[in-house]
Amino acid sequence: MLKRLVEIYRQDLCESVMPFWMRHSIDREHGGFFTCLDRDGTVYDTRKYVWLNGRQVWTLAKLYNEVEPREEWLDAARGGVEFLRRFARDPQGRCYFALTREGAPTAFQRKPYGAVFMMIGLLEYSKATGDADCRREADQLFESIRTWIADPSLLGRPTMAGAPRVSQLADVMVVLSMALELGRTDVMRTCIDAALRHVEPNREILIENVASAIDGNRANLMDLPEGRLFCPGHAVEVCWFLLHALRKLPDPDVATEQRVLRLMENCLIYGWDEDHEGLHYFMDIQGRPTLQLESGMKLWWPHTEAIYALVLAYTRTRDERWLRWLERVHDYTYRTFPDPEHGEWFGYCDRSGKPTHMLKGNNYKGCFHVPRALLMSIQAIEEANGDLRTD
Amino acid sequence: MLKRLVEIYRQDLCESVMPFWMRHSIDREHGGFFTCLDRDGTVYDTRKYVWLNGRQVWTLAKLYNEVEPREEWLDAARGGVEFLRRFARDPQGRCYFALTREGAPTAFQRKPYGAVFMMIGLLEYSKATGDADCRREADQLFESIRTWIADPSLLGRPTMAGAPRVSQLADVMVVLSMALELGRTDVMRTCIDAALRHVEPNREILIENVASAIDGNRANLMDLPEGRLFCPGHAVEVCWFLLHALRKLPDPDVATEQRVLRLMENCLIYGWDEDHEGLHYFMDIQGRPTLQLESGMKLWWPHTEAIYALVLAYTRTRDERWLRWLERVHDYTYRTFPDPEHGEWFGYCDRSGKPTHMLKGNNYKGCFHVPRALLMSIQAIEEANGDLRTD
Repeated sequence: MLKRLVEIYRQDLCESVMPFWMRHSIDREHGGFFTCLDRDGTVYDTRKYVWLNGRQVWTLAKLYNEVEPREEWLDAARGGVEFLRRFARDPQGRCYFALTREGAPTAFQRKPYGAVFMMIGLLEYSKATGDADCRREADQLFESIRTWIADPSLLGRPTMAGAPRVSQLADVMVVLSMALELGRTDVMRTCIDAALRHVEPNREILIENVASAIDGNRANLMDLPEGRLFCPGHAVEVCWFLLHALRKLPDPDVATEQRVLRLMENCLIYGWDEDHEGLHYFMDIQGRPTLQLESGMKLWWPHTEAIYALVLAYTRTRDERWLRWLERVHDYTYRTFPDPEHGEWFGYCDRSGKPTHMLKGNNYKGCFHVPRALLMSIQAIEEANGDLRTD
Repeated sequence: MLKRLVEIYRQDLCESVMPFWMRHSIDREHGGFFTCLDRDGTVYDTRKYVWLNGRQVWTLAKLYNEVEPREEWLDAARGGVEFLRRFARDPQGRCYFALTREGAPTAFQRKPYGAVFMMIGLLEYSKATGDADCRREADQLFESIRTWIADPSLLGRPTMAGAPRVSQLADVMVVLSMALELGRTDVMRTCIDAALRHVEPNREILIENVASAIDGNRANLMDLPEGRLFCPGHAVEVCWFLLHALRKLPDPDVATEQRVLRLMENCLIYGWDEDHEGLHYFMDIQGRPTLQLESGMKLWWPHTEAIYALVLAYTRTRDERWLRWLERVHDYTYRTFPDPEHGEWFGYCDRSGKPTHMLKGNNYKGCFHVPRALLMSIQAIEEANGDLRTD
């Protein structure tokens, strides 16, 4: 089965996904990437979104570094890097959320994620080119981001007397992802501990928000929808980051690796929609209502993350139960999201799997989750089985 | 048909909708209203949302003033007024978005709407009680809100060099709604002009965002998703506010009234989902993708607004085509949203009309759109036909 999958993923990555973005997203006039692309690639919003520009730089540089040194990938990445370095940061060094086509700021989000994706883009690009300025800026962003996460008032978020201080799983994950790219095992250790504080003890799954280590108590948070929030795709994504990190530590921790695999399985079992298949987007762990209107939808990225997490779990353990899960998730995903007509994947479906939007990209979907999961799945399978390229 | 409808609406309002809120939403311990209520009324989030607390005060005081002076309504309204006056405003007089059950602030939204709904609540309550302090605070909020809308930086929204200055239909509508309650015909005139600047000339419908009168040009905005955004329910709601305002002016403007009725019909025709019935939530007027994930869903409130707008249009014009539209919208709405088992309405359905959430209230759905539309529809029908109560 893995042999069949690797061929599907290689073909999807090289003949559908990357050609779509290379053909439609590059702004050769002003630099940077358009990501609001309709089904056929038509641009329907010329703004440049900083999250997605950083992410596309990362993807292109990663492909250049690890698949093949194609000049077109590096050139496109350079266009993104120059645009971001010129326009993405505000006078205090924080990142805007959106810029006009020409680079003027149009929106600022009081979150650290624009900076996170700019950081990983610059870092991967600096690996491709040896550009020391890029590397320095990436290192400096890493430190700033950790400061901003520790004190969100630096991003302009007011401190509210009645708001509990929470640890957000997304914050833990992005710091872990940057630490992995930088090889910072000290930070990885802290992040592993922080992620495991998100384990919900009854179901043994990872939930989105828990009381911050520095104050608050868990019981209070469980009274709030955000304290009961579970995003299966996100939890599974964190699990594969944890599996990566655990193997980077100087002393491998087999017990924690086993625990993360159990968490991952629990998240998949609880997050799977038995009526319509696919992973639920948001759930309340007490079965109460969620505040997010999109909870009942099916999104592409939880499925890309689950595919890679399952490839990783199977190639590491060779336990057949991961293969059965992989088949289930793969079949649902490939029946639901890819667009055979114009390439790339649809992103947003209703609960039954019917697309609610025909777009290929917007202000949150760009050239990232799909190519990352395909590339890493191919690499994991090849590494496990030897090079399947000529099979 | 109107006779049948008025009975349905009266029964729904008095035996299902208001009993649900009176039974489940009142916090007799700390004051204010819970609005995060599950299907059966169970509270799943004890926070107090300022939009919805202000709106519920308005609804209760309005029922007290115009249906029947029931002490339980006025007592409940008083609990909301006292809670809001004590806790809702920040040191600069702006309104928080959410408070804990006890009143400590948990979130601030850089928008004027919390203040708008607090204002209309205080004003209606002051009509019920003659409370001069409430009336003064409402008047003062009205002036502050107009200042905040003119200069959003006062709400903490940064000015962005690349962001076009836009007129938002929501802002026009809320000022118009307050001006109507205050009888300020000078402001009504300005709002009528401002709303008509939102007419999209090709389809003759009202769209959400147009270039601000003070700068920008319309062509640029049409390149952006927000410049092409159409929310049928919102547009129809604005139309009935315009019809109210036009009759309040000292010199009735028949030509504009005719124009508003044509706009309303165009909005309904273009906004109606011919495949699955119901009003689309968000649309792009060029058929391009929308950035909102909930675009393909069906929400309760566009349908309450359409029902009242159609009752108003028919009772004013006696033109049978409004009656045909009313029948269509009423039948879809009553087949889709009300919950015969536990009372009140579901709020959120997928495109085919199946509920995606079983909740009756959340941080945006409270005791407002349903009872307001039912009450105003009953009043309009009774006013047009004489008292149907004993028919």
